[in-house]
Amino acid sequence: MTTIDDPSRKAVVLLSGGLDSTTTLAIARAEGRRCFCLSFAYGQRQSIELARAAAVAGRLGAERHLVLRLDLDRIGGSALTADLEVPKGRAYEEMERAIPVTYVPGRNTIFLAHAVAWAETLGAGEIFIGVNALDYSGYPDCRPEFLAAFETTANLGTKAGVEGRRFVIRAPLLHLSKKEIIRKGLALGVDYGLTHSCYDPDAEGRACGACDACRLRLKGFAEAGVKDPVAYRTRG
Amino acid sequence: MTTIDDPSRKAVVLLSGGLDSTTTLAIARAEGRRCFCLSFAYGQRQSIELARAAAVAGRLGAERHLVLRLDLDRIGGSALTADLEVPKGRAYEEMERAIPVTYVPGRNTIFLAHAVAWAETLGAGEIFIGVNALDYSGYPDCRPEFLAAFETTANLGTKAGVEGRRFVIRAPLLHLSKKEIIRKGLALGVDYGLTHSCYDPDAEGRACGACDACRLRLKGFAEAGVKDPVAYRTRG
Repeated sequence: MTTIDDPSRKAVVLLSGGLDSTTTLAIARAEGRRCFCLSFAYGQRQSIELARAAAVAGRLGAERHLVLRLDLDRIGGSALTADLEVPKGRAYEEMERAIPVTYVPGRNTIFLAHAVAWAETLGAGEIFIGVNALDYSGYPDCRPEFLAAFETTANLGTKAGVEGRRFVIRAPLLHLSKKEIIRKGLALGVDYGLTHSCYDPDAEGRACGACDACRLRLKGFAEAGVKDPVAYRTRG
Repeated sequence: MTTIDDPSRKAVVLLSGGLDSTTTLAIARAEGRRCFCLSFAYGQRQSIELARAAAVAGRLGAERHLVLRLDLDRIGGSALTADLEVPKGRAYEEMERAIPVTYVPGRNTIFLAHAVAWAETLGAGEIFIGVNALDYSGYPDCRPEFLAAFETTANLGTKAGVEGRRFVIRAPLLHLSKKEIIRKGLALGVDYGLTHSCYDPDAEGRACGACDACRLRLKGFAEAGVKDPVAYRTRG
């Protein structure tokens, strides 16, 4: 039987190996949580991020790192999982205006649903996710109203939820700018050289510097007044 | 780009190959929907149901049948995916009282999230699911309040939802008894001999006749006054 033995201590942390989820893990660790990190091999073209996620989980003292397979590439509909071109050099205003082709249908719902399932099995009460509604790519599943609705769904659809042991979705970066996220991570000792954000890395894993993820990341480092430690193959 | 080209016609149907989902597919077909059936190889011990799902999809004229892999057995916490004993011979009152060990953490949330993702890619507006809140095993993710919360989440977390092309979760069996479900299916010409419900089949795929799924099914056929056409290895 599932028992939520100490909900204030165990947490499932969704970890892509990117800047945001790495900072989120550092925050959960700083809060004293025992962190169970969850990543997905979902057919993403930037699969190098899984190796980075493993390195980050090890460095930040995660209790465990579980990588689950998903067949999202068989569903398609995204430049990250299908043979569509990743947009490059978009202006920030453009990112704010429309949902880009790098949007993956249902991704965060699927990720969170697995995180809740694992949390229920582990007896964890919290799920940490590094979504951000400020410096982000316009994905609908990164918005606070989505997270609130998902939390309600999770508590109605699980044994633990029905039995009154409530799951909480924690999104500590939700209202931070990229600059603030980076400053917070650096204050917690995060080595951003371990992380990977680019949607279109080359064979050596070097970032393109031009996709939305790279541009948001570079803007954040510039505003924080710090050099981004990862390798770029082109850089403006 | 995703376009919901004709939402009243295309539908994603979650199909396990069991009695309920097969009847649900027959209802969707009778309503004139072009049905895209979705099944999951999730590490279930009753994996024979996937072959039955394929047979059912073919017989009922589904447009496509997609089987996606999930690593739910690596999450565990259920008698259907881990090495726990499937309960046998439970009284109906007992089924109504407590959530059994065959409950799979997060299962319907994960299934529905994939269904919505595929619906978005296909341009489908409806997702059919064969859940039932009357003659069921007490699973929290089969209740109307869960489905309503999930529908809200899906519409907030997807591009199509945000753009106003609403997803609808259809659960036509929700308030039917097993007897009513069987009568409806038979009226629509369903061959229940193709279906599989048992949680603990033998190597030849014969049903045990004693697990919750078998007992609910047998009770339904008995009340409908019809003989269940599937093979049982023991029968009370």
